[in-house]
Amino acid sequence: MFFASDNGGPVHPAIMEALAAANEGDAMAYGDDALTARARDALRATPEAPEAEIFLLASGTAANALALATLAEPFQTIYATPDAHVINHECNAPEFYTGGAKLTPVAADAGKMRPEALAQALDPARFHSEHDGAPGALSLTNLTELGTLYSPGEIATLARIAHAAGLPVHLDGARLANALAATGASPAEMTWKAGVDALSFGATKNGAMGAEAVILFDPARARELALRRMRAGQLLSKHRYLAAQMLAYLEGGLWLDLARSANARTARLANGLREIGAVEIAPEPQGNILFARFPRALHQRLLAAGAEYHLMDGDAQKGTPEEPLTARLVCAWSTPQESIDRFLQILRSLTA
Amino acid sequence: MFFASDNGGPVHPAIMEALAAANEGDAMAYGDDALTARARDALRATPEAPEAEIFLLASGTAANALALATLAEPFQTIYATPDAHVINHECNAPEFYTGGAKLTPVAADAGKMRPEALAQALDPARFHSEHDGAPGALSLTNLTELGTLYSPGEIATLARIAHAAGLPVHLDGARLANALAATGASPAEMTWKAGVDALSFGATKNGAMGAEAVILFDPARARELALRRMRAGQLLSKHRYLAAQMLAYLEGGLWLDLARSANARTARLANGLREIGAVEIAPEPQGNILFARFPRALHQRLLAAGAEYHLMDGDAQKGTPEEPLTARLVCAWSTPQESIDRFLQILRSLTA
Amino acid sequence: MFFASDNGGPVHPAIMEALAAANEGDAMAYGDDALTARARDALRATPEAPEAEIFLLASGTAANALALATLAEPFQTIYATPDAHVINHECNAPEFYTGGAKLTPVAADAGKMRPEALAQALDPARFHSEHDGAPGALSLTNLTELGTLYSPGEIATLARIAHAAGLPVHLDGARLANALAATGASPAEMTWKAGVDALSFGATKNGAMGAEAVILFDPARARELALRRMRAGQLLSKHRYLAAQMLAYLEGGLWLDLARSANARTARLANGLREIGAVEIAPEPQGNILFARFPRALHQRLLAAGAEYHLMDGDAQKGTPEEPLTARLVCAWSTPQESIDRFLQILRSLTA
Amino acid sequence: MFFASDNGGPVHPAIMEALAAANEGDAMAYGDDALTARARDALRATPEAPEAEIFLLASGTAANALALATLAEPFQTIYATPDAHVINHECNAPEFYTGGAKLTPVAADAGKMRPEALAQALDPARFHSEHDGAPGALSLTNLTELGTLYSPGEIATLARIAHAAGLPVHLDGARLANALAATGASPAEMTWKAGVDALSFGATKNGAMGAEAVILFDPARARELALRRMRAGQLLSKHRYLAAQMLAYLEGGLWLDLARSANARTARLANGLREIGAVEIAPEPQGNILFARFPRALHQRLLAAGAEYHLMDGDAQKGTPEEPLTARLVCAWSTPQESIDRFLQILRSLTA
Repeated sequence: MFFASDNGGPVHPAIMEALAAANEGDAMAYGDDALTARARDALRATPEAPEAEIFLLASGTAANALALATLAEPFQTIYATPDAHVINHECNAPEFYTGGAKLTPVAADAGKMRPEALAQALDPARFHSEHDGAPGALSLTNLTELGTLYSPGEIATLARIAHAAGLPVHLDGARLANALAATGASPAEMTWKAGVDALSFGATKNGAMGAEAVILFDPARARELALRRMRAGQLLSKHRYLAAQMLAYLEGGLWLDLARSANARTARLANGLREIGAVEIAPEPQGNILFARFPRALHQRLLAAGAEYHLMDGDAQKGTPEEPLTARLVCAWSTPQESIDRFLQILRSLTA
Repeated sequence: MFFASDNGGPVHPAIMEALAAANEGDAMAYGDDALTARARDALRATPEAPEAEIFLLASGTAANALALATLAEPFQTIYATPDAHVINHECNAPEFYTGGAKLTPVAADAGKMRPEALAQALDPARFHSEHDGAPGALSLTNLTELGTLYSPGEIATLARIAHAAGLPVHLDGARLANALAATGASPAEMTWKAGVDALSFGATKNGAMGAEAVILFDPARARELALRRMRAGQLLSKHRYLAAQMLAYLEGGLWLDLARSANARTARLANGLREIGAVEIAPEPQGNILFARFPRALHQRLLAAGAEYHLMDGDAQKGTPEEPLTARLVCAWSTPQESIDRFLQILRSLTA
Repeated sequence: MFFASDNGGPVHPAIMEALAAANEGDAMAYGDDALTARARDALRATPEAPEAEIFLLASGTAANALALATLAEPFQTIYATPDAHVINHECNAPEFYTGGAKLTPVAADAGKMRPEALAQALDPARFHSEHDGAPGALSLTNLTELGTLYSPGEIATLARIAHAAGLPVHLDGARLANALAATGASPAEMTWKAGVDALSFGATKNGAMGAEAVILFDPARARELALRRMRAGQLLSKHRYLAAQMLAYLEGGLWLDLARSANARTARLANGLREIGAVEIAPEPQGNILFARFPRALHQRLLAAGAEYHLMDGDAQKGTPEEPLTARLVCAWSTPQESIDRFLQILRSLTA
Repeated sequence: MFFASDNGGPVHPAIMEALAAANEGDAMAYGDDALTARARDALRATPEAPEAEIFLLASGTAANALALATLAEPFQTIYATPDAHVINHECNAPEFYTGGAKLTPVAADAGKMRPEALAQALDPARFHSEHDGAPGALSLTNLTELGTLYSPGEIATLARIAHAAGLPVHLDGARLANALAATGASPAEMTWKAGVDALSFGATKNGAMGAEAVILFDPARARELALRRMRAGQLLSKHRYLAAQMLAYLEGGLWLDLARSANARTARLANGLREIGAVEIAPEPQGNILFARFPRALHQRLLAAGAEYHLMDGDAQKGTPEEPLTARLVCAWSTPQESIDRFLQILRSLTA
């Protein structure tokens, strides 16, 4: 009953096989090999962006921070939602990679940035002098950290506001697959067609061992990103193994199949919880993350029974039994249905 | 005939098997899993350092830069040899990770720092005021970038000079295995017993897919390094796969076997070149890297025949046929003996 | 009718005389001169802190950023109010000087940080892993940016919360003199006795030409701050002229006289505005800054008549005549009473 | 007998008068005042560069570091001579301001960079991959730190090499006046006409209290520099006092008169030393700095007699009496001729 993270699951067998298949003979290091060239082509084709520049790496935090450092200057401000990974969960990685840019939270509803709050933050009337800094970039996340999603049109609305103020747009796509699977939008529609300039394309949470990419839709800053990746120690030497993962991940639409599977498991869990009734689910889950609120006593029993997940607003062991606490429950493509059903069954029996 | 790098070879089969074996079920991410705990224990045991703190990551450049950022302040100077990887081949990674420390080259013979040059660089008489900066750390490399090696006693001599000036000592051990295999020294003798405070322990060049470690012999700065690793985007989520590599690498002394094998191949290559006679080898190779100097015309024929290696001081295609150029030839554990023999055979036939 | 800033006034005559008196013969540069030694002594004596270390410089932003860089690490978070100068008006100087620390706003009432909001921000339950960063330092401002003030007891309450969490406390004292003049507290009571570890001591706004100081009450990090000041290009060569300003500023309590004068002028302005009645003043001004809210049409006439001040929430020329806008009105020791009276007279005649 | 630095002298009376004259009424802070506008115009007119952008500040180290941070990226390399102030005497300020660029020394003769060494450092054959970094900017100093000077033609030769490789050129002009006074070249000839893109224009060493400027001949990066200056805490609030100094400094060619005076004093000192004979002068002094080598015993007597200067290569008190040590002797416009004559007289009597 592991719902702590979609980083906890195994590597998909097809990706393991691809790694084994790649393990043959010598290959130039640092991406000058044939497999990497193929992976780059596949990553360009996925969002139908033949001009895009592709950078493989092993860490989503690094993908975000490198993209932002390439889009924004150290004397500028990056705008994101208060619970964005780049603000909240990267231990100042964007501040580090950008050389000291400011991260400024913009108000959000259910994890999604409010267009009018962004417009207000970028209002030229706020920027009188050097003291006020300068806007640098907009960073969005889809699927959001709260398990909600932006439609391509919603991304486009925010991107238009940013572009009108001269800001490029970054999309943290650690769970892009889940957002695409949920909306049915194409990768192109959700990214550059909606105004995204740089994309963190995640594979690790959705079945890879450790493979991410930055996709720069505007190749003008590609040279800069290449040098920044190197000096960040993010240019892995045996690059073919990143490439092999990414190729298998994209091959035949595996990535979207896996995301659909993770989303479906989450829906099954949500439906089960709703039936039980003693549980408040909010916001409405749209991908593979859900937040469920119920009394501490139930959390204690579930955790004691072997469930693994994080609480967002308190300690399972300290406090009154009846106080409600919020669980963050994440399903991966690999979450066994039996885990879900057993979790629901325990909860049902406890609340009966 | 691939001699371009020890980063070009495949992953050792035992390490591939370990990855496959680790690919089972869920595990807490970011190193909170049982396999990582075992790998840390194994890495502590290797240099007989039960108090040491262990940090797994996927990049040697990151291991160096993180170790140096933990040892030195941004207003200080790090001393290394002119051809050290940290000065010469990391695109300012140490400057980045330290937040702007200075890297100062110290004179070396055949890649090995001269103790008297280090003593002179650290002479208190050089540091009159804030203008002069302040010494921060010493960084050594063993096996050196020039394929030579320090004995434990030589490391100790340099470390004593550094410690006397209050500087901690970092050892870039991207090829530590090759140095140990060549000297027969134990990991403890070559590191903390000789005065090393932080070690970059490499596995990637010697058979892993992408697995490195920082070993902090003094655990006092472990918390700082943990936070620095995170904000650098170097804390990989599916940590068990780093751990699996490292465990297989250390298991039964595999790592030293592989290094011995790489060194032996290099010796075979060196001996063959010496027999041919038209080739100048310098410095004397002591591990798995050698530098061979011979006329451009020979390089042209070897490269045309499929040999892959880097030239250090010129272009194979531009210049007179008789001008001597220096090849850097690196053998890995996986370099086929036939590659070596064919390379020698071609050269022999050309010079006959 | 200049109310735009307390940075706009002239240098006090006594300080100009001190500069002229210092302009004799040669003196060692960079602070190794007798006048600087005397100024340091005077700055230690002012808050009765004989062990404190003193650093003179010419910029308040630099004083804040250097103090914070010395107190907090780049992988940590600095807490301040949303309208603090360090968050809002320094174009990322703290992020720059710290090497990428995060600045996190903590909720405030009328510019003063809420103790319970600070306690919540520092709740250990928020810091589970490296992802969550780590608390670094607390930065307070007295007089606040909103013209309100903390009593020594209020500073002490916040400092206790910070210290309990292991955080040192910085006080931005760009207008410390105004806060002391208003409360009658001694410099010691308002700083180290209340738990302040590092103080930005401002003189420029209150009569100097350009002279500020960092006072480190705990001298342990003095060497670090000295090196950080140098590498920031903040160690002025002809240091005696900073020292001369500071000595004249402190001599005979000039600084507190000037602050009392600025506060009294502000009170006169506030009283006049209250009498007129059509003006909303909030928050209640406690030092030399006040915020007055009245219709745009009145602003237009005042500005047209030569008044100089900033509007906080809109444009004087764009919008309806009746919309209320907030003026920030700042008095210095040098603000002529006639300016105040004329300003009030115009407003009175307009609202009659 | 003060020869320790040209930072040790007083402020020229005309500049003190200008400060007093500026001390009248209110003025907008941060450079939005009339005096600053006039100073900018005067600084543009001086090198006949009506399009140039001007930034006043109080520190030469900051001027250099800001200029370099605007010209070079953090993943690039800045080239300078081994004894350049930016490499040797700024405690990593360029590394800090650039966000971690590398400073690489290029071989020099008598403080002047060798064109062929620069060409070799920028040879495209050195830059194969991201590992090798990338060239960023060239930084020259005139008058050099060794008291020698470049002619405009020599600057032009180096600038052409840099420009051919795509690098902008910075000139550290902390002692530009001394170089111009010595060569008779115009400011335009020595700067933009010779290929200089950004100039640190010093006034402090040559008679100001603390006033420097960055002159950007290409205004394209002016907005960036303005924001960088602010976030560095280098935008002084009471800007009119910087402006007043600079206006008086330029007025009627005062700055060149002062430099001629300092150079003439140095020549008088050099001639006197040559006559005495027991002293080795090298390199040949061309501005207001000279290096004189003579036995320790003589230094001991001179210092005991009240002479103040720095020794470059040893301790006056430790070592044999006959060992020669090198003194750095700097004259300012304010160095009294009697100091020079007395210094020479003492030395003459000692060596007689």
